[in-house]
Amino acid sequence: LPADALPAFLHLPSLGAAGAAVPLGPDDLHYVRRVCRGRDGDLATATDGAGKVAEVRLEDLRGAGRAVVLRVEERPLRRAATVLCGAPEGERADWLVEKLAELGIAVFQPVDCARGGWGRAAGRLERWQRLTVAALRQSRQAHRMEVRAPLPLAAAVAALDPATARWLAEPTGAPPAAAGQDAPLEVVAIGPAGGFNAAERDLMTAAGFTLISLSDNRLRTETAALAWAAGWAARGLARAPGVSRS
Amino acid sequence: LPADALPAFLHLPSLGAAGAAVPLGPDDLHYVRRVCRGRDGDLATATDGAGKVAEVRLEDLRGAGRAVVLRVEERPLRRAATVLCGAPEGERADWLVEKLAELGIAVFQPVDCARGGWGRAAGRLERWQRLTVAALRQSRQAHRMEVRAPLPLAAAVAALDPATARWLAEPTGAPPAAAGQDAPLEVVAIGPAGGFNAAERDLMTAAGFTLISLSDNRLRTETAALAWAAGWAARGLARAPGVSRS
Repeated sequence: LPADALPAFLHLPSLGAAGAAVPLGPDDLHYVRRVCRGRDGDLATATDGAGKVAEVRLEDLRGAGRAVVLRVEERPLRRAATVLCGAPEGERADWLVEKLAELGIAVFQPVDCARGGWGRAAGRLERWQRLTVAALRQSRQAHRMEVRAPLPLAAAVAALDPATARWLAEPTGAPPAAAGQDAPLEVVAIGPAGGFNAAERDLMTAAGFTLISLSDNRLRTETAALAWAAGWAARGLARAPGVSRS
Repeated sequence: LPADALPAFLHLPSLGAAGAAVPLGPDDLHYVRRVCRGRDGDLATATDGAGKVAEVRLEDLRGAGRAVVLRVEERPLRRAATVLCGAPEGERADWLVEKLAELGIAVFQPVDCARGGWGRAAGRLERWQRLTVAALRQSRQAHRMEVRAPLPLAAAVAALDPATARWLAEPTGAPPAAAGQDAPLEVVAIGPAGGFNAAERDLMTAAGFTLISLSDNRLRTETAALAWAAGWAARGLARAPGVSRS
């Protein structure tokens, strides 16, 4: 179906229980009225971006606009991936954030490295939050990607859940298929444009990271992050019930 | 190794046999002098973007600049992928071209579809050519991605080599892992922002395309193209000799 043949998909962080009337923000109102050409009484889908998905009825669209919750369901996160990402060159982080969010990555954690820090790009957090909302709408997901403030690499590694399967993208690594099984919690570390240095690689291998390679070619930071995320998304599909066919 | 610790990597379309002196263009000269801080007598790697890779010696860098070919080898394309791509929204094709080139896609073929044509974006062919050169340098490949002028979908399908394994990205498809084996020649068709219509899907299934799904989420055109390309690149790695490990 083309996008405009589907019901509108809204991000309403304060989504309530059935019967609640949730005010639409200015962005949502514009989206519903102008992009979806919605009218009072139309049904739409809404999510709080934290696993709750509701069918809603749109009302007062010529006024302040509200969504009346008809029924709600919880969609728990079956698997979650974190991307620890060094700084790419220039403005390349903007689309990286958008693409990782579309592919369903749970956490984007910028990491400051010896050969590259996020510097002023850290000031783009608010823009990145907006991009994750747009990506959530676009891809109709129940979970919004969390974008965290930059951390030093060591701190980001120390903060990981102990159960997390850990990958370090390096051209010398094994192909992902040979590197082991899928896990409910996964993290990949992607070096900055200048790459990780030896101390950083040592820190990560000591913390249980396994080296994996993503391509025969040398990839830019943002391309490597996205390539890993695409593989992660595809692995999830392959395990989903009911989708295999002979 | 960080990028600046590697020898310069040049795109010289007129790369000759050993002994030839190839003039550097203004872009190459800038790259060698300013980015790589090269000096006369330095060695570099050069490719014609069509499988020829040479070791060259840089000379006259303060003048017009030239590369003297020391030795040449051919790197035949082991496997080649074509992306038939409907028009994404806005300027999103620019980075898509760059990323597909980095991942080693052989041919980018824009296709005009019922629900979306390339229109003015077709005028960006020259810019896209430049992006493929930059990506070739960045990823140090011997083969430059070919960017073709837009074609109607039916014409692009008719022009495919009969031996090409054919995939059609659709949310209802099978996971790539379930969809069959890898092939030396592969093509994927990605719908425009508005999606393929039924007649286009019928045309492709009649032409031997198999439906595959890339993610549980609805992906934008450019994200779907890139997700498929990342999977294709990773499959190539997994089959490469000498990289598996227990």
